[in-house]
Amino acid sequence: MSSLIPNPVIAQIAILVNDIDKVSQAYANFFGVEKPPIKITDTADKTQVEYQGKSTQARIKMAFFQMSNLQLELIEPDEHPSTWRDHLNKYGEGPHHIAFMVEGMKEKISLFESNAFPLQQKGEYTGGRYAYFNTMNELKVVIELLENDRNEA
Amino acid sequence: MSSLIPNPVIAQIAILVNDIDKVSQAYANFFGVEKPPIKITDTADKTQVEYQGKSTQARIKMAFFQMSNLQLELIEPDEHPSTWRDHLNKYGEGPHHIAFMVEGMKEKISLFESNAFPLQQKGEYTGGRYAYFNTMNELKVVIELLENDRNEA
Repeated sequence: MSSLIPNPVIAQIAILVNDIDKVSQAYANFFGVEKPPIKITDTADKTQVEYQGKSTQARIKMAFFQMSNLQLELIEPDEHPSTWRDHLNKYGEGPHHIAFMVEGMKEKISLFESNAFPLQQKGEYTGGRYAYFNTMNELKVVIELLENDRNEA
Repeated sequence: MSSLIPNPVIAQIAILVNDIDKVSQAYANFFGVEKPPIKITDTADKTQVEYQGKSTQARIKMAFFQMSNLQLELIEPDEHPSTWRDHLNKYGEGPHHIAFMVEGMKEKISLFESNAFPLQQKGEYTGGRYAYFNTMNELKVVIELLENDRNEA
């Protein structure tokens, strides 16, 4: 048996919300920490987001809670087409994906697609890139791969 | 600020499914591992399950995938009333809860309830006990607390 994710470590659990201010405050209260800063993804010229094979202007607000073993991420999508907006509209607020760190994103995307997990969305962020796959039918959650560029010291 | 979960470590992510055989095989293929054994929770005389304050006969089939940093759990509920059955009926297949390990379950339940997170379900398993809380409105996911008995060596 070959693994699509050797030595899997879940790096993130991400939850879709309608009001990130409200929900991040609720988590801050729950964990007894300061409300984290709410970040907004870059514009599409930088993020090069593609959803279902087409460019989209979609952006999200994000907030991160760092646990000792992984990140809990909150995501509030805008109205442009994206996995985030469609998933939120279809399933309501709640968990959207679990994320794994990988190296060699291009090869991973090919490997996933050849194993009947089509690419759903991909994009860039400062220092790395991500990809979401159509895994809902089989795995009942969206799988995200994250690749951070190595810092060549 | 006081934390309901000091030094939070997410011990489990649990996903509700209709057909645990099928989904656990899909995850086994995905991770490139053997399909794990499917376990069934004990009968109610042993588990003492209470859902919304009432005893229930509810049992589940469970399968666990051990990552290096946490467990991914699959749950197929039976038809008796439970957080698992009601959540599956209401939201469909997908993530149900994230779990944190705690010590002092009774005190934790009191603390959660005094912070407007009412107990939703609780029960016993060999070597420990669990509690689920009504956190969907605020946190968009069910929170589970797990307490394992200490092995007195």
